[in-house]
Amino acid sequence: MKLNREVQTLISRFDSLLSGAIEAHFSDIERTNASNRAIDIVKEGMNYSLLAGGKRIRPMILLEMATAYGAELKTALEFAIAIEMIHTYSLIHDDLPSMDNDDLRRGKPTNHVVFGEDMAILSGDALLNLASELMINASISLDSPEKGLRAMYEILQASGSKGMILGQVADIKYHEGVIDREALDFINANKTGKLLKAAVLAGAILGRADDAELFKLKSIGEAIGLLFQLVDDILDVVGDESKIGKRTQIDLQNEKCTYPALLGLEQTRAYVSELEQSILMEIDKLSCQSDFLRSLVLFLSRRDY
Amino acid sequence: MKLNREVQTLISRFDSLLSGAIEAHFSDIERTNASNRAIDIVKEGMNYSLLAGGKRIRPMILLEMATAYGAELKTALEFAIAIEMIHTYSLIHDDLPSMDNDDLRRGKPTNHVVFGEDMAILSGDALLNLASELMINASISLDSPEKGLRAMYEILQASGSKGMILGQVADIKYHEGVIDREALDFINANKTGKLLKAAVLAGAILGRADDAELFKLKSIGEAIGLLFQLVDDILDVVGDESKIGKRTQIDLQNEKCTYPALLGLEQTRAYVSELEQSILMEIDKLSCQSDFLRSLVLFLSRRDY
Repeated sequence: MKLNREVQTLISRFDSLLSGAIEAHFSDIERTNASNRAIDIVKEGMNYSLLAGGKRIRPMILLEMATAYGAELKTALEFAIAIEMIHTYSLIHDDLPSMDNDDLRRGKPTNHVVFGEDMAILSGDALLNLASELMINASISLDSPEKGLRAMYEILQASGSKGMILGQVADIKYHEGVIDREALDFINANKTGKLLKAAVLAGAILGRADDAELFKLKSIGEAIGLLFQLVDDILDVVGDESKIGKRTQIDLQNEKCTYPALLGLEQTRAYVSELEQSILMEIDKLSCQSDFLRSLVLFLSRRDY
Repeated sequence: MKLNREVQTLISRFDSLLSGAIEAHFSDIERTNASNRAIDIVKEGMNYSLLAGGKRIRPMILLEMATAYGAELKTALEFAIAIEMIHTYSLIHDDLPSMDNDDLRRGKPTNHVVFGEDMAILSGDALLNLASELMINASISLDSPEKGLRAMYEILQASGSKGMILGQVADIKYHEGVIDREALDFINANKTGKLLKAAVLAGAILGRADDAELFKLKSIGEAIGLLFQLVDDILDVVGDESKIGKRTQIDLQNEKCTYPALLGLEQTRAYVSELEQSILMEIDKLSCQSDFLRSLVLFLSRRDY
């Protein structure tokens, strides 16, 4: 199993790429007595959660897809940074007292615990906004700005009120009643699935994927989104806390509906293997450099963290 | 004083344009037992604040500029709707208990009072996200998608952590100390000024404004942003509550620093006249259909609501 070496290098130093993007963003703003304090506060709030660790799965997928379809890595990297900012903003807002009310994430106090609710809301807003700014900037300099716009559209449709936000609304509101399989699929597909699918599509769009190819990639992207969630749910039950970097059994304590809770652990594991195999078969039908994509799928389905 | 008739018509039915945009946005999403409730909840939260009234100043400016520079009104309208969504999201988040803690806006309960804090945060997020989606969509279909990207960039840079969000951070954090003229200018320029300036620039960019013209429009846009704030501050002191649609003297009660508080009412009024005249002189140097722009400036400086 071998991921693309260039992509691996980028992911291994993703923290510094993220903080570099924040630094560059604020580099052209006028520093005065009046502006200094506000700039420092907003920067610190954004950096804190961006650099609080994370598997960087979405940027990894986007970059692997981009290389598989021959996209310029420099542009794809801006989109990879943007998608991680969107993911981070969603975590900051999800953790708020009025939502999941989480004090800890990856062993560190959550954003609102450190900076207050007001600043946490604004840091989240700022990261969502900056993600768009970065993608616009990267798109303007492309030979085909339309390509950039289409990649942006995939990402922002996935993070918006027909995607991630809708999933979060359902997750909060459906909690009150009994969650059946249809509701669980809906919540997961929207809350986590669509942004992962968008990472698959955006990377390919920035490269040379045509409409026929994108059609195939849509179902692969959906399957990858589901695969990711199934593995996450399994790791919450049986994972090694020291590897995962967060406490396990949290879903159980929060009475959160998960696939293992609904289907049983063994059937969820069987479902993962089944999905893994069907995704690999679909990948064989693609017209791209698919070796690394196969490795990516194996990495996602067999990860223990 | 005469504003562009087509623009006036659009502004007079802006409520239905906004609700139409929300309706269109959700029209292609699959309706199932699992999705129905979440879609209805998120739609209602977004519509509630969008349709809670408002002067629609930002879309009006953007559309007037677009017509002055010969932009296609259909595309400009998408940007006008987007900028009003961004303005609305900022009001929803500003009103939250952890920020300004306002229960009423324009005589109606604020979003979190009706739907809860969690849904208010998500509705705000959803509106910011949708604004980008709409502008991307409108840009893709342009002959020059790059133009759309440049207009988007003006708007999103203005609403982000180098603009509106930075201004809100300063407004909250600087409140603790004494606010001097420099700090007041900084807060206002960022919190309200930059998005108004972006409305000026984005409308012109979508039309035929070249770089030399945009250079002139930047200082006009800044002056319009300041003019708007000065008039708002004055109306809070002397305005007619029934016309403004909100209680006056709120700034005073909240011990908010304003121009009348810092400069005195008469000097603030003199400042408005001075700015109005200098903007009108700058407008004379533009190469566009400037009649309506003159009317727009007079409307902004002499409004009593």
